[in-house]
Amino acid sequence: MSATTPAQHSEQPGRIMSGEMAEQPAVLRRILTEGAPKIREVAERIAARNPRFVLLTARGTSDNAALYAKYLLEVQLGKPCGLTSMSTTTAYGARPDLTDCLVITVSQSGGSPDLVASTKAARAAGAITLAVTNNADSPLAEVSEFHIDVLAGSEKALPATKTYTAELLALYLFVEGLRGGDGAAAKALPDLAESVLARQDEVKALAARYRFAERMVLTSRGYGYPTAKEAALKLMETSYIPALSYSGADLLHGPLAMVDNISPVIAIVTEGKGGEALQPVLERLRGRGADLVVVGSQSEVDKAAAGFALPTDGVAEEVQPILEILPLQMLAYEVTIARGQDPDAPRSLAKVTETR
Amino acid sequence: MSATTPAQHSEQPGRIMSGEMAEQPAVLRRILTEGAPKIREVAERIAARNPRFVLLTARGTSDNAALYAKYLLEVQLGKPCGLTSMSTTTAYGARPDLTDCLVITVSQSGGSPDLVASTKAARAAGAITLAVTNNADSPLAEVSEFHIDVLAGSEKALPATKTYTAELLALYLFVEGLRGGDGAAAKALPDLAESVLARQDEVKALAARYRFAERMVLTSRGYGYPTAKEAALKLMETSYIPALSYSGADLLHGPLAMVDNISPVIAIVTEGKGGEALQPVLERLRGRGADLVVVGSQSEVDKAAAGFALPTDGVAEEVQPILEILPLQMLAYEVTIARGQDPDAPRSLAKVTETR
Repeated sequence: MSATTPAQHSEQPGRIMSGEMAEQPAVLRRILTEGAPKIREVAERIAARNPRFVLLTARGTSDNAALYAKYLLEVQLGKPCGLTSMSTTTAYGARPDLTDCLVITVSQSGGSPDLVASTKAARAAGAITLAVTNNADSPLAEVSEFHIDVLAGSEKALPATKTYTAELLALYLFVEGLRGGDGAAAKALPDLAESVLARQDEVKALAARYRFAERMVLTSRGYGYPTAKEAALKLMETSYIPALSYSGADLLHGPLAMVDNISPVIAIVTEGKGGEALQPVLERLRGRGADLVVVGSQSEVDKAAAGFALPTDGVAEEVQPILEILPLQMLAYEVTIARGQDPDAPRSLAKVTETR
Repeated sequence: MSATTPAQHSEQPGRIMSGEMAEQPAVLRRILTEGAPKIREVAERIAARNPRFVLLTARGTSDNAALYAKYLLEVQLGKPCGLTSMSTTTAYGARPDLTDCLVITVSQSGGSPDLVASTKAARAAGAITLAVTNNADSPLAEVSEFHIDVLAGSEKALPATKTYTAELLALYLFVEGLRGGDGAAAKALPDLAESVLARQDEVKALAARYRFAERMVLTSRGYGYPTAKEAALKLMETSYIPALSYSGADLLHGPLAMVDNISPVIAIVTEGKGGEALQPVLERLRGRGADLVVVGSQSEVDKAAAGFALPTDGVAEEVQPILEILPLQMLAYEVTIARGQDPDAPRSLAKVTETR
């Protein structure tokens, strides 16, 4: 099922992960320059086929990137979307008719056998297949009709960071290409990412808060919801803190019972309609005395116990997730270091997870 | 956003929840006798319209029932499916073209404004709309073209139990109706549910194990995955234990780092292809020394540290989830009682969650 490679211990804990986090502005720049023309070409060829529905297939971090694409496709493009339950194809042999359907498979390595098998099956069932990977020579790229390379360069740390933001930007440019947009909202991202990543001291101070946390809750709505899920995954993979993520609306449907003044909550408040829709949830959380930390605009941070203020002025809501995750990747890293663990060497994770 | 009703304290803690859990065999019987003909009629009318894609919309417990339906629709019927990201409609105003699309909204109360709004928008966008609710007079039933009443009777406990199994069975019979099946696999469920619910002492013994648990991980694959998610939600709502649920495949893509010999894991091993696909995950968990408790067949329980053996002989895989959740509902109840809390009165939950 899954080949375990021994965790790679670096001489200096977290050296690999922090190096890859730092590469992100350069990767984003590379996608905007070298990657964009190819992405636009793929998008135009697919747009000409006019798919009616989109299915997204992925696991782990890439699944969170796929969820971001789902919001883009529904909101920006008005296409109905679904996330694939992969076992229906790989374990149960379901073969739905996928004519008119675009199937996007997102995978850092492009190597997981179940992703390859389900993409192959989708293509045989009539789907337009697109692989979004960090490996143009991967089996997944090979079995897909179309391929987008996210150009992040080799990723060695087990917790994925630069491939996540690379997948987000590539998917954003792809959807822009589908709808004939110019992708201008992404232009400022490399510089903004650089300025965010430079604020390591702020994140270190925030990390102290979670030194002894036994659980964490992350919440958001709309475009920021994938950020909440990815931040929870990053925190779990590195620090092993049980981190639960909920859309703000779902949080009110049950899990709120778990939140009280000993449960730290991190809310990702995307500036725009998602952040607006989250306001009533933030009020409830403040009312319950939750320890509320906000990642969002300065004015939202000011209303919370603490937070990390993002540049949001003039940054379109739909590209904010590409910045939002950065302080949260850094937080996962700093909390793990503060706990005396090594972010480069999570227990029992293999870089290419071979689920079938 | 959400109207908070004061938690209803019963004289005897958990009296309301345990009463409603005990009603489940009778509710299942009622659906099979009174409900089935109406469900079949609705299914036949919808089948005649030949929808190409299905979108499912729900929150909380009903979202887990919707996920179960997604597996049925993909595996049994071969229709591509997606779960709706509701905020794309309610917060962002997305209006995708839903011609040929069946939109199923699942809700116990049928009263949440966002579900009503998104169903209304789907109908206006050309979708065939079906509401599956426990309230035939609800706003949701009214705005939907079709309605299925799950006939569970008034549900008063805040943690939903009988409406969950009622939704599962109603959705199973609906999909059977769509594909022209006879639903025979469900016939034995009321008696089997009765025999499972009678084994309260076994669950009480199991609950002792989690008296001081600080977190729990639930996992499964295929049809049992919604059970893992619903069990986690039930445990959180009642006992406030942070309970994380993952498909077995996703568990290997990251969160496994969090599992070790102090992290209790409950695996739901559905007898059939889902359980087979979970085997490599179970091996990994045993290899890590996880405290593994299994809900599944006797032979699967025998390989674990402890468990609850379900009747699986002659029970079709696709209906096993209707039994699987029962010992886990009871477990949430018993753990909560053991911790000196009241399962009827979770903090801060309103029965009708009015998210917008």
